[in-house]
Amino acid sequence: MKALWLENGVLSCQADVPDPVLQPGEALVRIVLAGICNTDLELVKGYYPFAGIPGHEFVGRIEKAPGNRERLGERVVGSINAVCHQCDMCRRGLPSHCRKRTVLGIDGRNGVFAGYTILPLENLLSVPESVPDINAVFAEPLAASLQITEQVEINKDNRIMVVGSGKLGQLISEVLLIEGHKAEAVPKYLKQRQRLENLGITCRSADECLKSSYDLVIEATGSPEGLEFALGLVRPGGILLLKSTYHGKANLDFSRVVVDEITILGSRCGPMPKALKYLVEGRINPQSFVEEILPLEKGIEAFARASGKGAGKVLLRIGNPG
Amino acid sequence: MKALWLENGVLSCQADVPDPVLQPGEALVRIVLAGICNTDLELVKGYYPFAGIPGHEFVGRIEKAPGNRERLGERVVGSINAVCHQCDMCRRGLPSHCRKRTVLGIDGRNGVFAGYTILPLENLLSVPESVPDINAVFAEPLAASLQITEQVEINKDNRIMVVGSGKLGQLISEVLLIEGHKAEAVPKYLKQRQRLENLGITCRSADECLKSSYDLVIEATGSPEGLEFALGLVRPGGILLLKSTYHGKANLDFSRVVVDEITILGSRCGPMPKALKYLVEGRINPQSFVEEILPLEKGIEAFARASGKGAGKVLLRIGNPG
Repeated sequence: MKALWLENGVLSCQADVPDPVLQPGEALVRIVLAGICNTDLELVKGYYPFAGIPGHEFVGRIEKAPGNRERLGERVVGSINAVCHQCDMCRRGLPSHCRKRTVLGIDGRNGVFAGYTILPLENLLSVPESVPDINAVFAEPLAASLQITEQVEINKDNRIMVVGSGKLGQLISEVLLIEGHKAEAVPKYLKQRQRLENLGITCRSADECLKSSYDLVIEATGSPEGLEFALGLVRPGGILLLKSTYHGKANLDFSRVVVDEITILGSRCGPMPKALKYLVEGRINPQSFVEEILPLEKGIEAFARASGKGAGKVLLRIGNPG
Repeated sequence: MKALWLENGVLSCQADVPDPVLQPGEALVRIVLAGICNTDLELVKGYYPFAGIPGHEFVGRIEKAPGNRERLGERVVGSINAVCHQCDMCRRGLPSHCRKRTVLGIDGRNGVFAGYTILPLENLLSVPESVPDINAVFAEPLAASLQITEQVEINKDNRIMVVGSGKLGQLISEVLLIEGHKAEAVPKYLKQRQRLENLGITCRSADECLKSSYDLVIEATGSPEGLEFALGLVRPGGILLLKSTYHGKANLDFSRVVVDEITILGSRCGPMPKALKYLVEGRINPQSFVEEILPLEKGIEAFARASGKGAGKVLLRIGNPG
């Protein structure tokens, strides 16, 4: 099958990657549309060791599901963590932290920038007809954004700042706005600012941000500088929620964390069913985030576009919708 | 009056420091016994800018309390934050984070390694007769230890590790033990290990600590290496509680924090009334921590002793108990 292939930091578009082989409980999914995430860009930069097919945001159709014929042809999105159900984390009810997990296109499992991918059938959520592919493909990053309100109880009068207005940062800002929260943003690029302001989100320049004043600051830049800036905005007793990974280690003034009794929360994947519900109810129309849709064959170009300053979401059209 | 004086990183014992001058609402306290804390040692190292009389752990007697004659002669311990009651933090019910606070012997206010100190009368808690000075002087660090269970809801089957078995670390270990928690320790020095094991606390070497397995890890080393080691022990979804300040910035693998959705909690001062209650009920007898008691005149020597490897609490006998 056709696929993007990452090896030794080189991304290539290949025509003859072997078709994936199903393990018990797994399903074969034909990819229709896939999204490029910052994590994908970081994998290509070599920030994390991964060789194989990248990509973890997708909508597709189930083509094989041995023993589960009733799900054949279903249009699906998927949770990216394939888990063991047996380790201490799974038994504790934290399957996304499974000790033996593989992660779609990120860790130990080929991803979705290919004609087909494989996931455990239990990971695949059926997408109702009413949700177009171009919205459904956002289910995974939308879930990651919704994880914030799963982790933090936000009061209506809390002041919130989202630092980093890239693909995920903008989605987070919109989700918080939709949920009725006072979330501001500090976009770096004019394009980001225009989109956010059109949505009705208060945007500030870095200089305009009042230090030590926000109840909740969400860090979505993935840069050590962004992390430091974000910590500076948190009020004493407030929360810094980290939504991006960082290359290598980051330096931080931990005395501030101690003296001001700040809480730092790591945040990764989120609730896919809730994300899907959001899309079904039309509470968010993420297609307005889409920068460009390119065919899989132009995957290298698509990655370059996705890396552009202030770029929105770049999608790969991989298979026919039907 | 006699006092230890810190200026430009030099600690000296002076005979003629001017007596403190009372502001409205403040009381003059004659110091009886004072404790040397790691923060004091760090102030001397120049880690934080402070000039004046250091020291914030004390027991003493109220000698002047204009307008509050009924409290004269009271034996007291004190909360170290003098607050404004008007800023946003005070109004929010977080007076220990008062924007305009001064902190006894740490920030903007002379401390207790002196014949007399001054604090707002409202900061001073009366010590019942049954609590000897040598226990009462531990009220402040005991409160700081008790802050942990104020911030974190600990289940009886949670696995807890205290990293750092210095003065504060040992007190934390004992408090957790008393509260019925399974808290282990990883002492660096034999002396620390012996004391902790005598208390019935399970001690491990660094190599024996199972990585990524503790529900709650308490960092009390104050060193960047300790911080990194402590983070490594936290299980996915677990909590790293920071109880020590750090000199400068510390490097940390924030991707681990994000991917494993770890919570980092800064923790500083704690509930003094609860600490006092602990002492009154005899739940803890911290005098077993005492390494040595020296007179104020030997303050420089006392600081050297307190800096010794594995040293317990060094106290300064400043005034007569009577």
